[in-house]
Amino acid sequence: MTEIVQGFPSTFTHGYQLNVINILRQAVRSYGRQEIVACHPAGRTRTTYAATYARVQRLANALQGLGAAVGDRIGVLDWNSLRHFETYYGIPGYGAVLLLLNIRLAPPDLGYVINHAGARLVFVDETLLPIAEAVAPACPGVQGWVILTDRGLADITTKLHPVYSYEELLAAAAPVYRWPVMDENSACSACYTTGTTGRPKGVYYSHRSTYLHAMAIAQAGELNLRECYYQLVPMFHAMGWGTPYAAVAAGAKFVLPGMYNIFDLGSLAEPLVSEKVTVTAGAPALLMPMLEYIRKLERKPDLSGARFLCGASEPSLALMQGFMELTGAEVIHAYGATETSPLVSGNRLLPWLAQELSPAAQWDLKRKQGLPVVGLDVKVVDPLGRRLPHDGQSAGEILIRGPWITGAYHDAPGAETGFTENGYWRSGDAGTIDAHGYIKVTDRVKDVIKSGGEWISSVDMENAIMSHPAVLEAAVAGVPHPKWEERPVALVVLRPEYAGRVDQQAIVEHLSAAFAKWQLPDAVIFVEAIPKTSVGKFNKKAIRQEYRELYTAPA
Amino acid sequence: MTEIVQGFPSTFTHGYQLNVINILRQAVRSYGRQEIVACHPAGRTRTTYAATYARVQRLANALQGLGAAVGDRIGVLDWNSLRHFETYYGIPGYGAVLLLLNIRLAPPDLGYVINHAGARLVFVDETLLPIAEAVAPACPGVQGWVILTDRGLADITTKLHPVYSYEELLAAAAPVYRWPVMDENSACSACYTTGTTGRPKGVYYSHRSTYLHAMAIAQAGELNLRECYYQLVPMFHAMGWGTPYAAVAAGAKFVLPGMYNIFDLGSLAEPLVSEKVTVTAGAPALLMPMLEYIRKLERKPDLSGARFLCGASEPSLALMQGFMELTGAEVIHAYGATETSPLVSGNRLLPWLAQELSPAAQWDLKRKQGLPVVGLDVKVVDPLGRRLPHDGQSAGEILIRGPWITGAYHDAPGAETGFTENGYWRSGDAGTIDAHGYIKVTDRVKDVIKSGGEWISSVDMENAIMSHPAVLEAAVAGVPHPKWEERPVALVVLRPEYAGRVDQQAIVEHLSAAFAKWQLPDAVIFVEAIPKTSVGKFNKKAIRQEYRELYTAPA
Repeated sequence: MTEIVQGFPSTFTHGYQLNVINILRQAVRSYGRQEIVACHPAGRTRTTYAATYARVQRLANALQGLGAAVGDRIGVLDWNSLRHFETYYGIPGYGAVLLLLNIRLAPPDLGYVINHAGARLVFVDETLLPIAEAVAPACPGVQGWVILTDRGLADITTKLHPVYSYEELLAAAAPVYRWPVMDENSACSACYTTGTTGRPKGVYYSHRSTYLHAMAIAQAGELNLRECYYQLVPMFHAMGWGTPYAAVAAGAKFVLPGMYNIFDLGSLAEPLVSEKVTVTAGAPALLMPMLEYIRKLERKPDLSGARFLCGASEPSLALMQGFMELTGAEVIHAYGATETSPLVSGNRLLPWLAQELSPAAQWDLKRKQGLPVVGLDVKVVDPLGRRLPHDGQSAGEILIRGPWITGAYHDAPGAETGFTENGYWRSGDAGTIDAHGYIKVTDRVKDVIKSGGEWISSVDMENAIMSHPAVLEAAVAGVPHPKWEERPVALVVLRPEYAGRVDQQAIVEHLSAAFAKWQLPDAVIFVEAIPKTSVGKFNKKAIRQEYRELYTAPA
Repeated sequence: MTEIVQGFPSTFTHGYQLNVINILRQAVRSYGRQEIVACHPAGRTRTTYAATYARVQRLANALQGLGAAVGDRIGVLDWNSLRHFETYYGIPGYGAVLLLLNIRLAPPDLGYVINHAGARLVFVDETLLPIAEAVAPACPGVQGWVILTDRGLADITTKLHPVYSYEELLAAAAPVYRWPVMDENSACSACYTTGTTGRPKGVYYSHRSTYLHAMAIAQAGELNLRECYYQLVPMFHAMGWGTPYAAVAAGAKFVLPGMYNIFDLGSLAEPLVSEKVTVTAGAPALLMPMLEYIRKLERKPDLSGARFLCGASEPSLALMQGFMELTGAEVIHAYGATETSPLVSGNRLLPWLAQELSPAAQWDLKRKQGLPVVGLDVKVVDPLGRRLPHDGQSAGEILIRGPWITGAYHDAPGAETGFTENGYWRSGDAGTIDAHGYIKVTDRVKDVIKSGGEWISSVDMENAIMSHPAVLEAAVAGVPHPKWEERPVALVVLRPEYAGRVDQQAIVEHLSAAFAKWQLPDAVIFVEAIPKTSVGKFNKKAIRQEYRELYTAPA
């Protein structure tokens, strides 16, 4: 770790701690009447910062009544509800750790997370009781289940035990709580990463990291008291992208969609107009069907000036242009991960590029992950850890360091390799940074082909092959090679009408327009179908396994 | 001090330090081509964040060449110039303390500040050499004077010794510097308070306080990469209100006026239009003549949407309405002090009040000091330290606490009384907070009359007396009283035509419309003139001294 140098003493050594509860407590003082709107099947609940803060204080008193201790981990299994929002403040304010539980996890993984965190209490929405009941037998450490419901506890049938009613606890609790001042490096919440190999890994956000991230989101997202934020991102994903804190810090109106699914886009899209939403965030998987829904509306909503932050994967041009043309809303590509709280970068157009680039080039630029926010160190390094130039060409792994980038995983022996000696987190993303500073993620590092000390992007090569008119689908993977470490192999599915009429040479020639000679695949294999994962992605692991001896086996 | 509670460990204990240099270093990565424009008599220098960062790195190397050490205090005596801006980053980045020297201080006070801080080097603009020369004999600890000039050192005649040329040092230095990671609680800069009784007192800002304040200013000031900030506030006042850091953190264009005076308003106002300024800040003493200048222009500049933060004293309605009517710019009253970095509150109109208040009531509201920003604890307390209600009526002393509020003065024995046990700074301002959260400063606490455990505002009473048609001027002060601690005495100067025709009873009757009976002055004394200070304010100290036995002397 880098040496920390002591300078001359300041007069600011009083140690005022950055605490998450301060955001709401202080926002209530200045913006107490600001609205919070919660959608649910029966309609909409309209409340205020001030009224919600009173319920948050009741929640803290209720936790005390349940015997919860400072430092306890308390799980929450819920949609984006008002009660979920209250737990974002009440549990960290109490000094406990808000353990965000992903309702999409398979029960064994969810049980693993609850046990690994050592959760003592779990809050669960009544619609998610079957999930809680499926994991409960494997979670003997959970001493109580708090049911989030409008109904009386007597009307709830569940195998969980013991159970409490959130509303009954709050009704019985006092509306004033004297918050402890928590050491700002203490954990306030936790999310477990998913989608990687192996078991979920826990990121335990600190009060400090969460607070600093909220301020960064508020500034970068241009939130203020005249804006309206719509919390579409699930609050169990990377702390809901920090916006339940950032929007309140900025005094913005806050809208919660409640339980939703992408088959009910009308009720999901409706608040955009009726609540005058100006900022929201979501994955393309959510925004794309929403756009299609809007496309079919006779009267298109006017969302001019609204910003839709879009993360998780690259928004397509069709998505970005569609929203702009139909509604006036700007889709802004943003980049981050559970380990990064999550904001790393957002794609804002630099004023000088607005002058210099053609409209088409500006749209193309918008596909990049954008400009790193001030506060973070971001670099792209080659396999030996050497910093690569910002030329938009030199691809390497993206490394990130800063106040809201985790320095470890909780209790995960062996996971130290995910971090560098001087405090950078290895994102596992391969990408470039261009001369203007825009990050572009091209691949997962594990999907990049390492050939002779250089990297070849499998995604770029796949896209290039698929641009051949005869090709239906193509996947490229790196497989072991005795001399070059790895070499690419391309699997190609031809369109039925071209079957047997295109050979390896035609594919390689097609590629040679965009790739250097040494990058071209040594083998193009025509197949009936490409192995896929359960969610429909190319299964690179299976491909690498199947062809592992392609270049090493004796001829 | 409040107990700090340890919670469950987070995974963010890597100790990434908030360092001021990171703001520029990281902003250069994303906004390197953003403009910095420096006005000076010969024209304008147009440069960029990236080019300035190279000069900042040269400055650090030059400091090393001069033998400066981490922790050294380095004074700067300059206008709002590009070089001054460079020292804002280069000196703290090097690990030294940027000591901001007020060019308006009397030489004995300036010498006191330099000696109290133990400054080792002083940077001085060539136009300010006479000031430096006046203090130099009293400052034997200063080991070198760095002259800020475009001319060669040989062309400068000065009694200072030894002298160096800033530009020659930079030209000879390398353009890359490897910054130390400073403990974030180390001092990065220092300002001394003035205007209070006694010697100037030093506030030594930490890297952390400065960084967090910059993020708060960026958010509250709604700065972003499309904005243009004009640094009118002297950079030797309360760290230039933190905007040299906040604007860069937000990626905004930055304009420096250079040396200016209020007799040359044309060149001061011109950049508002030609550089498309969207945000600036200044005292009414600067903005008022600027408005008068604009009023005389045949073609009024269009500054629609621009925000002019206005601090130091209350902006008049005429100033706020004048700018709005003539230019479309909004004047926003803000509140703070050297001890508060300085942002405490800003007057933004709450959206719901825009609906509920009449235009006249909205203008009246804009005169208040505004809403405290999120991040700070602010309260109004009675003389016994008890929190007063937010009713807009209960007046007490304003107390402030938070990450960018100083906890002490540097090396100032006895000054501990300026702080409460639990970390609040006593502002010395008397005021109220209304039900919406707006702060209103009514008085200095020392000018408030403490009568029977309650406070009477001397300023309110003066204004009320002066609203009597016969009154030319009036001053009210509290003088000792055996039973009530203090009681008000009013000094009144009548207009010549009313001399001898108005008595105490008439004044008291006039006041009784707005004041409770117990608040009314026991004595109204008609005088020829009211004692004034050298800057034209009522000299309350002299009044209290002269009438100290009014209510205690034997009859």
